[in-house]
Formats: sequence, C-alpha cells, structure tokens
Amino acid sequence: MLKIAIDAMGGDNGPSPIIEGLLLALKKNKNFEAIAVGNKEELLPLIPQKFDHRIEIYDCNDVISMSDSATDALKRKDSSAYIAIDLVKTGVADAYVSAGHSGASMSLATLRIGRIKGVSRPAIATLMPTVDKNTLVLDVGANVDCDANNLKEFAIMGQVYAEDVLGIDDPLTGLLSNGEEESKGNEVSKEAYKLLEHIPNFAGNVEGNDIFNGSTDVVVCDGFIGNIMLKSAEGVADTIGKIIKNNLKRSLVSILGAVLMRKVFKSLKVKVDYAEYGGAPLLGVKAPVIIAHGKSNAKAIQNAIFQAVAAAQSDLKIDIENRLQQYK
Amino acid sequence: MLKIAIDAMGGDNGPSPIIEGLLLALKKNKNFEAIAVGNKEELLPLIPQKFDHRIEIYDCNDVISMSDSATDALKRKDSSAYIAIDLVKTGVADAYVSAGHSGASMSLATLRIGRIKGVSRPAIATLMPTVDKNTLVLDVGANVDCDANNLKEFAIMGQVYAEDVLGIDDPLTGLLSNGEEESKGNEVSKEAYKLLEHIPNFAGNVEGNDIFNGSTDVVVCDGFIGNIMLKSAEGVADTIGKIIKNNLKRSLVSILGAVLMRKVFKSLKVKVDYAEYGGAPLLGVKAPVIIAHGKSNAKAIQNAIFQAVAAAQSDLKIDIENRLQQYK
Repeated sequence: MLKIAIDAMGGDNGPSPIIEGLLLALKKNKNFEAIAVGNKEELLPLIPQKFDHRIEIYDCNDVISMSDSATDALKRKDSSAYIAIDLVKTGVADAYVSAGHSGASMSLATLRIGRIKGVSRPAIATLMPTVDKNTLVLDVGANVDCDANNLKEFAIMGQVYAEDVLGIDDPLTGLLSNGEEESKGNEVSKEAYKLLEHIPNFAGNVEGNDIFNGSTDVVVCDGFIGNIMLKSAEGVADTIGKIIKNNLKRSLVSILGAVLMRKVFKSLKVKVDYAEYGGAPLLGVKAPVIIAHGKSNAKAIQNAIFQAVAAAQSDLKIDIENRLQQYK
Repeated sequence: MLKIAIDAMGGDNGPSPIIEGLLLALKKNKNFEAIAVGNKEELLPLIPQKFDHRIEIYDCNDVISMSDSATDALKRKDSSAYIAIDLVKTGVADAYVSAGHSGASMSLATLRIGRIKGVSRPAIATLMPTVDKNTLVLDVGANVDCDANNLKEFAIMGQVYAEDVLGIDDPLTGLLSNGEEESKGNEVSKEAYKLLEHIPNFAGNVEGNDIFNGSTDVVVCDGFIGNIMLKSAEGVADTIGKIIKNNLKRSLVSILGAVLMRKVFKSLKVKVDYAEYGGAPLLGVKAPVIIAHGKSNAKAIQNAIFQAVAAAQSDLKIDIENRLQQYK
C-alpha cells in the first residue's frame, strides 16, 4: 500500500488543518496510508479511532519554524520535516507532503532524498489558472540564479510532469520572455532558447499574459522571476477584489447586484483559490515532494496529498531521468 | 509657449486617435501648443480650423511601422518619429509623445536627444494601480540586462519623477525581489540592495504583490522582469474579466446582478484602464519623452500629452542630474 509521509507540525496554524486535510483525503481515496510525523500528544486527539489502521504516528519533538534558517534543517534530525523526508529516503514512505518551512523541505529533499540522475537543480512547479485550463509554471522559487541549461532541464521536467501527472499529451512549452520574437530575451533566456529548440513541443518565447491565456501548457523561467510573477498575479487578483468590495459599499443597489452575482464570484473564487490546487511539487528529486502554503487549510492539504499520491503512482522519476538523458 | 512634438503617424490605428487626443488635450489645457509631425494630406482634414493657431503641421512622408527594426530608426530621417525627436533635440519643441514603435522612440530619444549627465541607461516607467493610489515601476522594458548600478540609477530617477511630476514627497522606494529579507534576491539585486541602502527613502526588498498593495511609491527592477510583471498583471486582470463574463452568461439572475453592479465595474475599469494613465515616460533623456501604447485611443493620447506637459513644466532634467551626482 502506498504510504505518504506528512510533516504534521509544519504550517502556520499547527497540526489541526494538516490532520483535518489528511482525514478528508483518506476518506476520498482508499488507496493510500499515511505516516503523520509530529508530537504524538498533539496529534493523537486529532485523529478519530477509526483511522488508526491508516494513519501511523511517528513521534518527534522538534519542528522547524518559519523563522528558522533553511541551512539549519540538516542538523535538526529530530524535526518533523527531517524525519518525514528520511522516511521517504529509506523507502518506508513513497512521497512527502509539508506545509512547513519550504526552504527546509527543499534542502532536505534535495540533499537527503537526492536528485534524479541528470538533474542539476530541482525546481518548484505551480499551476496558474486560465479561463478553461491551467498552466504549469516552473521554477517559482527554488533557484534564484539559473543558467540556460537549468532552464532546459526545467522545461523537460515540466513536460514530463504535465504528461505523467496532469495527463496532458504533448504539452506545449514556452520560455518566459519580454516578447514573442526569437530575438527577445535576456542573456540567459536567449541562450536557453537555442537549447530548447531541440526539445519537442517547444512553443518559443511567451509573455507574461500567455501564462493566463492558456496558449501553452508549461512555462519556464528562473525562480526569481517565477516568484515575482506569482506574487504579482496574487497581488492583482487581491487588489481587484478589494476595489470591487470598496465600491460595493457605496450603494445598496450594487450590494444587491453582488448578491445576485454570488454564483459567478464563487466560480471565480474556486478558480483563483490556491487551496483548489493543493501544493507545489518539487520536481527533480527521487521521490514526490509536495510543498504546500504555510497557511494551507484542510482542503489545500487534502489536495496536496492527492498530488503526492498521483505523483507516486506515476512513472515521474524514471521518465524524467530518461527524458533528460534523451535530450542531453 | 510650451511646445509638444507629436509623432502623429505612429500608433496601430493611424493618425485619427492621435489627433483626436491632441484636440481633447488642447481644449482642456490652454498652456501649450503642438507640432503634429506627419503626412499633411492625412492630418489636415482631422484638424478643425479653430485649432490652426495651436497646431502646427510638420509635413513628412515616412513612418516607422511596428514591424520595422528599431535599429533602422536612425536612418529613417524623414520618418515622423525621427523628425519629432529632432524638433525636441534642436529646442523647437519641449517634449515628445508617440504611440508608434516604442523601440524606435527609445533609440532616437537616447541617441538624438541624449542622456542626462550621469545616466548610464534611460528607463521606462509606468504606473500600476493599487486600491487608492498608484505605484511607479521602472524599468518596464528599455533594458533587458541590468547591473546593480543601473538599478540604483533607476531608483533615483523614479524618485525624482515621483517628486517632480507626480507630486509625492519622500517617495518610498522598493527593490523588486523574491522576498522581503535583505538576504533574498538574485546576484544583481543583492548587489543593488547594498547600493540602494545609501539613498533616502529606500524601503528594502519588496515582493510582486507589494506593487499592487501600495506599500511603496516606486519599485525598481530590470526591464526583462518589469515587462514580464506588467504583462502578467494585464493577463490576470483579463482572465478574471473573462471568467466573470463566461459565468454571467449561464444565468439571467447573474446578468441582472451585473447590471446592478455596473457602477462598481465601471470604477474598476477606470482603475485598470491604461488609457487613464496615458503613456510611459522614458526617464533619463534630456527632454520629456512619453511612449504611449500602440493601441492608444484618444483618451490615452490626451493623458500622454498631459504627462509630457507636466514633465516639461517640471525641473525633472536638472533634478535627476543633481540627484545622481549627489548619490554617486
């Protein structure tokens, strides 16, 4: 039976939403079991007895907090993140999920579980919504300075993830740039363009708006730009919501309008709610590692666990290794 | 009398919206005159006789089209952009406005009008909306690869523009990065951080969402990232609009709701409509140069002209020169 190791202590709101999300996931999917790593005294009361046979608690007394340095993670051997990662490293568990310190999860996964053969640097991928589908964007934060070869590897890893886990055939892949023409780009992206021309389904340069119009399936950039793009997108959505709310308050007619439109706003909210997407996979390590928002609610954790299960049931690792070898 | 040179032939929709915007601007502001550079036969019928004394037509027969290369701009000496720029260079006009080929305008302005003393590279600045104010972001496209010193100069030019033209005292200035901590950033931005610590009103690193929450007045980044951020923001706003429209169609109740909310949507539209902001100033050249969208309507051109007038009436050039010298 598939086993998912869960860092039950990470996350801004303690173990409650993590365990709640795990229970939701276990109810909906009978094909996996979990190892919840964390303080037994805190976790036990959160788990109904009927889940005893599907959740094993691995007791530990340390947790890497958001304010700790990621570089200390390797020394914190009794922390929930360290132990959960090691359960995957030793093969006791098949995948890892954490809403804790993302830098610590990345370091531990990269250094303890290890990189897939051919991967220079693992990358964090995330799904961005468009009107009728999603776009997988990577890297969104693991690697701040990248060279052209890193970007090429991200493209290949993103394509394999899109195929194996998201079920997209021949995922069209763009290179994020400041214009569509081949001549556009900064030094690194222009060099990457030349490398990417040799991989299948390369769509050339794409612009920021292309991420949100669904013209490609995978978009590649360095983690500095990916993070700025992601946060900017969140900022725009937040600001639009606030402007609407502030203007609503000025008239009863508008408020009535908003009530009548509530189904529309609900559909929109579902589209832009991170919780619907779960977490972000760290691609390029030897086992599925899903990094969830620190503020994850139960639904986000449930979906992060589903991502871990789907990735663990796929041939992601071997396919990434083979594809990188093929287009070396 | 202040004279604005207008490239009347640039723009996706020919001279009509340009002249229409100019007429709007002239009606509302009596303190300037214009030189419209373009084909006299095309322009004359667009200008009512009563504006004859405030609009001079400078006849020419060439226009740099959007598909032309910016590098050819310097050879196209009979083009509307070249001539309008030269009217500023020779002091016949005080500022330049164009909705034509932005690369051509940038090259011509930089090479013909010339850079302000102390400026390594001019930068394009643009206003991004927040709930209750705007954030000036630069560079959004002039310089794809930048070093730390370029970013420092952008910060200083942005601050002076915010003070002199936007009327903001002590403009708080952030460096766009992947996290707020000083340790965050890529190689160039970390180096820039150290330089920026020596200028006043430096707010440290800011994230993508900070552009849209109004926490700072000026945000600095390289033109590659600025372009991606700008296009991503436009993409998010477009996609939210489309999701709302698509969902509206599914129910009459929702459509009624939207009708009742139309004032709210109108306020939102005003906030995110580029036409409200006019164009983007190219900061660092010796005279005000305003680059408008190719698709500019009359309102956008009117506002671009107002920006040119405001910049020409300010001490922008001398203040940028002095401030750069002061924080060299």
